[in-house]
Amino acid sequence: MEALVYHGPGKRSWEVVPDARIEDPEDAVVRVDGFTICGTDLHILKGDVPEVPLGTILGHEAVGTVTEVGPGVRTVGPGDRVLVSCITACGRCRYCREARYGQCQGAGWILGHTTHGVQAEAVRVPFADGSVHRLPEGVADEAALMLADILPTSYEVGALNGGVRPGDTVVIVGAGPIGLAAVMTTGLYTPERIVVVDPVGARREAATALGADLVLSPDDDVVGTVRALTGGLGADVGIEAVGIPATFDLAVDVVRPGGRVANIGVHGKPTTLHLEDLWIRDVTITTGLVDTHTTPMLLRMLQAGKLDAGRIVTHRFGFDEVAAAYDLFADPVASGALKVAVHR
Amino acid sequence: MEALVYHGPGKRSWEVVPDARIEDPEDAVVRVDGFTICGTDLHILKGDVPEVPLGTILGHEAVGTVTEVGPGVRTVGPGDRVLVSCITACGRCRYCREARYGQCQGAGWILGHTTHGVQAEAVRVPFADGSVHRLPEGVADEAALMLADILPTSYEVGALNGGVRPGDTVVIVGAGPIGLAAVMTTGLYTPERIVVVDPVGARREAATALGADLVLSPDDDVVGTVRALTGGLGADVGIEAVGIPATFDLAVDVVRPGGRVANIGVHGKPTTLHLEDLWIRDVTITTGLVDTHTTPMLLRMLQAGKLDAGRIVTHRFGFDEVAAAYDLFADPVASGALKVAVHR
Repeated sequence: MEALVYHGPGKRSWEVVPDARIEDPEDAVVRVDGFTICGTDLHILKGDVPEVPLGTILGHEAVGTVTEVGPGVRTVGPGDRVLVSCITACGRCRYCREARYGQCQGAGWILGHTTHGVQAEAVRVPFADGSVHRLPEGVADEAALMLADILPTSYEVGALNGGVRPGDTVVIVGAGPIGLAAVMTTGLYTPERIVVVDPVGARREAATALGADLVLSPDDDVVGTVRALTGGLGADVGIEAVGIPATFDLAVDVVRPGGRVANIGVHGKPTTLHLEDLWIRDVTITTGLVDTHTTPMLLRMLQAGKLDAGRIVTHRFGFDEVAAAYDLFADPVASGALKVAVHR
Repeated sequence: MEALVYHGPGKRSWEVVPDARIEDPEDAVVRVDGFTICGTDLHILKGDVPEVPLGTILGHEAVGTVTEVGPGVRTVGPGDRVLVSCITACGRCRYCREARYGQCQGAGWILGHTTHGVQAEAVRVPFADGSVHRLPEGVADEAALMLADILPTSYEVGALNGGVRPGDTVVIVGAGPIGLAAVMTTGLYTPERIVVVDPVGARREAATALGADLVLSPDDDVVGTVRALTGGLGADVGIEAVGIPATFDLAVDVVRPGGRVANIGVHGKPTTLHLEDLWIRDVTITTGLVDTHTTPMLLRMLQAGKLDAGRIVTHRFGFDEVAAAYDLFADPVASGALKVAVHR
């Protein structure tokens, strides 16, 4: 079969590799019908995730069709259309038993990380019962693809960790795919207002189209503007969706006493936490990796027409165009790309 | 009347001042029967809290007897024994309506801070209905005094913010009065183990006497020891009860993925938050000022004999010995003092 292989920082190629096959009784082999590219894949290609072995097939977001399952798999079988989620869950460890699948001690985020991923014609999915989600009737591949990572990540690590409630003022810092997904998923709680901060005009426009009430540039007086809108207090919830110190700090600065800061961004550097100001302010800061425990609910919401996740896909490619898909996704300001879908 | 007056950094004196009197219809005047000294009073005397006006009477923890109330006070009257709490609550602002009295926009922590405090023969308590708590029958002054600040602070900002549950491993960093109070109040949830870290042997002994299962010095391998006790994972909850970067960092380092860090300490400096490690670890960090919304419950627990708060008092003085009480409390390592009670 063919697949996108990581050969070290800056080096990737779509090439012939050994076929995916059952290696463990709980494996499934899934023929990949479509996949997408994550900012994390770009981080790996930059060399920021050094634990990824050379020769690993990248990718952790796909939809496909099961072709074969091991004898221990009970909930899916050949012919089933499934979502292959970014999180693989053993189902047995302490964290799985608490539904914290992202922290699974036997698996977790392994696809395209410590084992072969989904940017390929087929993928072996370990612990298939806990790791793939059967697609409901009528759910389109591209919409489902957005549920492999960004929708549940923005929902669980953003909206749920941030404790978003009706009537809240929510500030989302960053309008990349995760920030835009957060506009959609925090919107499920009907905040009083969603404010989105991003330096790129096209992304601010996308945020508005998806439901943001106010969009700002980081060059604006974000804290002052939000305080003026909230009786001088600040936001109820700040959601960090970038992964650099400045955006985290803004999410902290913009919340009111008693507010909540939900970090979603993947960070490579520390920041300064101003405990001398924060100790008295009743602030809650959360970090997290997605658990995907809400993925089945989000799939039902797609089917019910309550979530239009496919809107985040801006560009489409064939498997033979994956190099072009990466190049475009790696330069989103020039290309205007949000999420790309790569179809069989 | 006589009172302890702040005259600038390093300067305090017990001296004659104008009598406390009703200034607003919702005021009560309380004859002080006993008060205690807080680490925060020492911070003020060091000049760390510059907003305290010169001439302010210090102190925010007292028990006493109501002598007079304004016409707007409905729940207490002359002759009632009351706890004067560190938090004064207007009862009307957004935060009061959410029971976040510590963030009260009309009052909050004002006694001995922005208005005259309780280290005096009498004190005017604004918004008396929301700010004093009638003492149940049979509750001793010294035990109640521990509920003016440290017990509810350790309970609300430590145990509740930290989400302590039965079976947890809780690490409390610091065994001063707040840390020791946290041993008592986290103990209400029957953790699997309470580990207390403090450099002072006498404080570690006090922690053991109050219910700590294991006491360590910061020179020990705290993180390694806790991981070894928890299957390699780390603590469920880390409670910071000192207020310096090193102790906060230890509370963060010692918790497992999915763990919770509850900061109680009053900080004067920022720390470095290692988001590059934390972003993926599902960690929750909280800060907070006590709201005292649990003070009535804690008073009932005193009355029921379920909480032996008076045990934290190690030294007793008369009003005429307040200077000696301060000197002793300011040097706890030499004196072995935990909380001091200053009685009429």
